[in-house]
Amino acid sequence: MAGTGTERDLFAEAARLGELAREIQDSISSLISSTWNEEQVLRQRALALDSDLRKLQSAAQKAALDPTTADKLNEELCRTRCLLSDGDVESLLPNKGHGRFLKMLLGPVNVRAMRKEVQLKMKDEYNSYRDRTAILFLLFPSILLILRSWIWNGCLPALPVQLYQAWLLFLYTSLALRENILRVNGSDIRPWWIYHHYCAMAMALVSLTWEIKGQPDCAYKQRGIVLFLVWAIMQGVAMLLQNRYQRQRLYTRIALGKAKRMDVVWGEGAGVKGQLWVLCPILFILQGFEAYVGMLLLRTALVGAVSAWQVIVCGILLVVMAAGNFVNTVQTLIAKSKFKAKMMRSKSKQDMDQLLSPDSR
Amino acid sequence: MAGTGTERDLFAEAARLGELAREIQDSISSLISSTWNEEQVLRQRALALDSDLRKLQSAAQKAALDPTTADKLNEELCRTRCLLSDGDVESLLPNKGHGRFLKMLLGPVNVRAMRKEVQLKMKDEYNSYRDRTAILFLLFPSILLILRSWIWNGCLPALPVQLYQAWLLFLYTSLALRENILRVNGSDIRPWWIYHHYCAMAMALVSLTWEIKGQPDCAYKQRGIVLFLVWAIMQGVAMLLQNRYQRQRLYTRIALGKAKRMDVVWGEGAGVKGQLWVLCPILFILQGFEAYVGMLLLRTALVGAVSAWQVIVCGILLVVMAAGNFVNTVQTLIAKSKFKAKMMRSKSKQDMDQLLSPDSR
Repeated sequence: MAGTGTERDLFAEAARLGELAREIQDSISSLISSTWNEEQVLRQRALALDSDLRKLQSAAQKAALDPTTADKLNEELCRTRCLLSDGDVESLLPNKGHGRFLKMLLGPVNVRAMRKEVQLKMKDEYNSYRDRTAILFLLFPSILLILRSWIWNGCLPALPVQLYQAWLLFLYTSLALRENILRVNGSDIRPWWIYHHYCAMAMALVSLTWEIKGQPDCAYKQRGIVLFLVWAIMQGVAMLLQNRYQRQRLYTRIALGKAKRMDVVWGEGAGVKGQLWVLCPILFILQGFEAYVGMLLLRTALVGAVSAWQVIVCGILLVVMAAGNFVNTVQTLIAKSKFKAKMMRSKSKQDMDQLLSPDSR
Repeated sequence: MAGTGTERDLFAEAARLGELAREIQDSISSLISSTWNEEQVLRQRALALDSDLRKLQSAAQKAALDPTTADKLNEELCRTRCLLSDGDVESLLPNKGHGRFLKMLLGPVNVRAMRKEVQLKMKDEYNSYRDRTAILFLLFPSILLILRSWIWNGCLPALPVQLYQAWLLFLYTSLALRENILRVNGSDIRPWWIYHHYCAMAMALVSLTWEIKGQPDCAYKQRGIVLFLVWAIMQGVAMLLQNRYQRQRLYTRIALGKAKRMDVVWGEGAGVKGQLWVLCPILFILQGFEAYVGMLLLRTALVGAVSAWQVIVCGILLVVMAAGNFVNTVQTLIAKSKFKAKMMRSKSKQDMDQLLSPDSR
């Protein structure tokens, strides 16, 4: 049985712990508020610097300097810009906002990381996610097509195709979410690639409602689905190549960034130039094929072989995606060649990160 | 034309801005690391306190105290616990982890807010989101059923139903995401309610692939869909009632929490007791109806009227959800009545927040 001595001890310990809890609560509250205040001061300074940089940039453009001097000044300004955007200062400057998609799905949660380190890790993880999914992107439709000719006698059953379509919907939703999060964290991914994933989500959703017809005339009725699967395989190959290219550039950026963040662009131009000339033709062929599949779907709908509204919507979405992909790939190539010309002229390897970011595929 | 004077000015300004950028970068880096260090120290203290509290609690249980003394000590300990869980200290203690669902869809992003204020705001926004969706939950199926008898002559067309199913999929995905995020932020929502939303997501996905048959025998073939829509309307009513109940409790909590966080539980018992006796019968009727719809679907599949696999899966999911909902509602009621009995006995209005959290519906 417990005596009053033990009782007193227990109450004393309880009182001590209560006191301690209040102390810790006070400390953490004051730490949070003092950090907030210091951040605000630094934020004001960073914003002032940002606007001064803009002013100087426009002043430099107005003052008609000779090309060598202008390049030298630009180099100096870009160095400062890179310091801001590649360092932790970036977290102080206003960001792109969370966007409707994130707000609708996640609510008012803050997904912005304070440290550049964490942001780069997020990007790295995103790239490995893309790698993993690219392999599945190749495997799933390949297996479906192989089983179709080996076991299913040229006639796809509904369930495996619908499972694949559900997986596509999940995949594109997660890619759209992750890319929106990367955007909040300072990635300058082209908006089109996110819209592209919204279109792909819509297509996966529509294709789920699309009835998969069997015998008789299976080969004829399922022509659209087979074309779609072939396109998906090509998409998988392109994703793998793109990922290789993106990864190499990010690693160069992280590795060099640790030594001296400003020299990052130098490394980028060198290592991956050759690969771009393999990647681009494949991308263009893929885009052409995407548009072709879209047109075929539209034709089957108009001729009247398969008159479901799903066929028309999928056809239109494929054509829109192909056109958008084409325009954006061309724009990226123009930006890259402009940047290259500028580098050649100024004989300097350093320039704005913006033009050659790891996201501007 | 610009003279060399302007040139010199421009370069001087550029140099000044570069210097400033380095300064700000150094300040923010050191602020981040010093905050991190101070946080670590406080985290160690909070963890030590947490384990001391546990030790004292088990020591108190072992020492056979008389009921009045035990209650008094428990009250003291609960007060300290509440201080930890309702204050900013909570962000220092290890949390529940992000879980597979969030990791898969969002990647390795941190969605935990540091301040309790922000966490309570997130919860408030979640409640308004539920309010808004509950109204749509009522409206959409009602409109479909009204149009069915007024315009569509008792035969639902596929497209509007599929749009509704796609909306359901989106809604349940966003609810599952938001609830997982609330869980990371210290909400003690019962895991079942999140699993329930995974089941509902699966059902929405499956129902999208479910072919909606038209004439002839439309009324017979679409019986399952009509039952499902009626159930959805009841679900909307229950959601509205639940939201009202949850909201009132959260507001009491925030309002009282500002004055003295510990007294929160006091206010909870008082205001909403009456409403629970309206809510519970409705919830039980709804769960019974859910199980009934599931059984009907399974029967139609077994009798052979509609033999699609989707019917069987939807039927099983509905029965599982109904059973899970029933078990969890009963468990919540038992926890609440136990808590009430304890309150009556100790004549104290203060007790652990855990038993009567705003999430344990």
